[in-house]
Amino acid sequence: MRFDAMTDRKTAAIIGGGVIGGGWAARFLLAGWNVQIHDPDPQAERKINAVLANARRSLPGLANEALPTEGTLSFHGSIASAARDAALIIEAVPERLAVKYSVYAEIEAANKTALIASSTSGIMPTDLQANMTSPERLIVAHPFNPVYLLPLVELVAGEKTDPKNIERAKQIFTTLGMHPLHCRVEIEGFLSDRLQEALWREALWLLKDGVATTEELDAAIAYGPGLRWAQMGTMQTFHLAGGEGGMRAMLAMFGPCLKWPWTKLMDVPELTDEFVETVGAQCDQQSAPLSPRDLEQIRDANLVAILRALKAQNWGAGQTLAAHDQHLRADDTPDFSAPLRTMSRAVPLDWTDYNGHMNEARYLEAFSKATDRFMELVGCDQAYIAGGFSYFTAETHIRHLDETCAGERIYMDSLCLSGSGKKLHIFNSLYREDGHLLATGEQILIHVSLKSRKATLPSETIARNLARIEKLHAQLPRPEGVGRAIGQALSRK
Amino acid sequence: MRFDAMTDRKTAAIIGGGVIGGGWAARFLLAGWNVQIHDPDPQAERKINAVLANARRSLPGLANEALPTEGTLSFHGSIASAARDAALIIEAVPERLAVKYSVYAEIEAANKTALIASSTSGIMPTDLQANMTSPERLIVAHPFNPVYLLPLVELVAGEKTDPKNIERAKQIFTTLGMHPLHCRVEIEGFLSDRLQEALWREALWLLKDGVATTEELDAAIAYGPGLRWAQMGTMQTFHLAGGEGGMRAMLAMFGPCLKWPWTKLMDVPELTDEFVETVGAQCDQQSAPLSPRDLEQIRDANLVAILRALKAQNWGAGQTLAAHDQHLRADDTPDFSAPLRTMSRAVPLDWTDYNGHMNEARYLEAFSKATDRFMELVGCDQAYIAGGFSYFTAETHIRHLDETCAGERIYMDSLCLSGSGKKLHIFNSLYREDGHLLATGEQILIHVSLKSRKATLPSETIARNLARIEKLHAQLPRPEGVGRAIGQALSRK
Repeated sequence: MRFDAMTDRKTAAIIGGGVIGGGWAARFLLAGWNVQIHDPDPQAERKINAVLANARRSLPGLANEALPTEGTLSFHGSIASAARDAALIIEAVPERLAVKYSVYAEIEAANKTALIASSTSGIMPTDLQANMTSPERLIVAHPFNPVYLLPLVELVAGEKTDPKNIERAKQIFTTLGMHPLHCRVEIEGFLSDRLQEALWREALWLLKDGVATTEELDAAIAYGPGLRWAQMGTMQTFHLAGGEGGMRAMLAMFGPCLKWPWTKLMDVPELTDEFVETVGAQCDQQSAPLSPRDLEQIRDANLVAILRALKAQNWGAGQTLAAHDQHLRADDTPDFSAPLRTMSRAVPLDWTDYNGHMNEARYLEAFSKATDRFMELVGCDQAYIAGGFSYFTAETHIRHLDETCAGERIYMDSLCLSGSGKKLHIFNSLYREDGHLLATGEQILIHVSLKSRKATLPSETIARNLARIEKLHAQLPRPEGVGRAIGQALSRK
Repeated sequence: MRFDAMTDRKTAAIIGGGVIGGGWAARFLLAGWNVQIHDPDPQAERKINAVLANARRSLPGLANEALPTEGTLSFHGSIASAARDAALIIEAVPERLAVKYSVYAEIEAANKTALIASSTSGIMPTDLQANMTSPERLIVAHPFNPVYLLPLVELVAGEKTDPKNIERAKQIFTTLGMHPLHCRVEIEGFLSDRLQEALWREALWLLKDGVATTEELDAAIAYGPGLRWAQMGTMQTFHLAGGEGGMRAMLAMFGPCLKWPWTKLMDVPELTDEFVETVGAQCDQQSAPLSPRDLEQIRDANLVAILRALKAQNWGAGQTLAAHDQHLRADDTPDFSAPLRTMSRAVPLDWTDYNGHMNEARYLEAFSKATDRFMELVGCDQAYIAGGFSYFTAETHIRHLDETCAGERIYMDSLCLSGSGKKLHIFNSLYREDGHLLATGEQILIHVSLKSRKATLPSETIARNLARIEKLHAQLPRPEGVGRAIGQALSRK
């Protein structure tokens, strides 16, 4: 048994290499486990390698620390060969009891000690373990696609499960970076899928009845409720729908709606005073010591961070924000005889750090965006970059002169110090709305070919624009701090 | 009518100043509209000002451009006084038809032309407009809490609504930065609440039956399905659960589960071949030209961005990641006689930019994190900072020497150039796994009191540690590039 030998590599067996089995394989391998897979599908190896490629691209960077060295992946022609020697055996075969029973029989014959975890989305472990010779080893460990990224795994014991195996599973999945949720009461669909399945069945009705398309149903989630659900579940979200009164006020306000046909699910528990008090008290306890007002600020900070993350990906609600930015952007014909106004905005909530002010890295983000805007104004825009050329930053010198906080309005003025040949030299000054200087960011960029990744001359249009701006800006006063070596500014203080 | 006079400010009236009405007020005001509110609650003004304070903190920074100057907020003693002169009138009163009818009568008497938009969560506009003299003006515009941050607004016409008013509403809400979703078929609960309400009623049953607590139900969403729903709805998410076969394969796999009691919603549409083909074709069309494999990569990039955004907030699934970082962190007793290994990680997906490599601002993020780790190693840790002291960065000099991409392993070595008095001078070198130098980041930090925000001497422990490291590091070779002025490095090339 390799599991308890902490000096050795642990081994997981995975029976069934579909979307879920492949995801499990990736999560275990990248956490340093060896993985032994069995799947009768001749395409399994190719499909799992595709999942693994996605996981290698996305999972390691999730962590702020290096992951262990990857384990070894092997494909096995039989369940017995895959299961032998493993500390943990994952069953991820189709949702058919007969298939699962036969898989368990083969596993039990080959391996007498490993924990056996079914990935079933909703079959009760008591039903799964009905025919087993060692039913105490079986648990449900229900993950979510993509298994290598989403932390949730629901753990469920059957009537014959040894409760120690739930604890053992909690430990294992925690070391994989997951969030084990012990579903204490055994029920079909467990917790997550009961909620998802109700929504899914309602969605199928709306499609069947021609009320909406799949795209419209998805928009009804991803631009609204889904953004909340990424950071708080339904109960805490509705706790905040009641304002200062929390969940109790929400139930008083929306309780009567439960009798209305707002879904096909018309069988609804009665909102007795006792039940309202139970739910209200649980919401209070779940959030303690935070009041609904405190939670609102946390929710807002989370939503801003999520929305801005999606804007950087130009997807979903983030696309809405990006389109709004275009709408807000002043339709300016820039005056090249003055420093260029390359930014005007408020400091976002997610730019703040543990010191309560805008984090230093966000200053460079601001300088970088301002320089992007400068490039755009001289002709190095999206179309130009799509054509295979861009500017890469070679060097930056930042002086932090004062602090700024979330919500404060800031703007940037950019001066072109030189722009001939392959080099572009810019001096950015970041100001508070009232003209107070917050920081300077001097940058040297090099024009490159995105194909060769080597320095090359810019287009004639850009060269001409830069020559013109360089000449005009040469007549402006040089800002204090230009060309300074690091430490010079401070030693004068 | 101020709406059409684009040179003038537009005015919105809001009848009902609760959580939703207050949220609307914030969204309109910050978009530059004047807002006239009526709410009989004597606490309304105080409550709305609390919502406004939250909105001012969070909304302006969502955009990458400056918002217009805020409009003017006024409170009115009557519906007539608030509604008069407005281009758009929002009704956000309790979900009782009698109350809504009486509000509409007062609105219609005071304002003959404004668009009237109900915020109802599920009552059909045909029922709302039943007693109106100008029913063509009424639409449903159903927003989501917090209204000032979430983009979704569902637009629904009643039988007597003038269709032009849906188009007019789409325009208005788009200029507010929202995503209007026209629910083409009128149905109780519209689209979003039908889906949410099915989930909510299922959750109430699980609470009523004692299967789970509110906290467990929320974990079952926020650590798994909720993260997916923030960027793709249920249909596109399940389109990816079918692997290469998409939604059709998913329905073949999980179709039989619809007959099982995985939710209280047991009335389920029959999966005829025709219906499966309709849903499958809609999913293909919705995602075209992207294949399920393409979408997987987009989903993963979104999930990484969302999860890392939540990690920075130390909330929900982000807390799981932070705890896992602690678990992964090498339990090192640092060797101060060598440069300190202050980072070892993979480049995250969300650090990549339009040039296909790690964005320049992320280099400073890496240097900043490395410097944080250095500070921690010398005693300026979380507890010390909570005690009211920290280091602020005063100056940074970055040289970008080579590119790096998502997934690549990188590490940082930090050299202490000097650490006496209030000043700390660090030279960070960022390497690729194979020892190839990617960038250098030289930083000067100043020890400060977080109360006075002024420079002050560090604790004796920190001073002693720094003196020791400074002495040890003085014996190491100086890296090339130390103390360089900007441009010097390049001019040698």
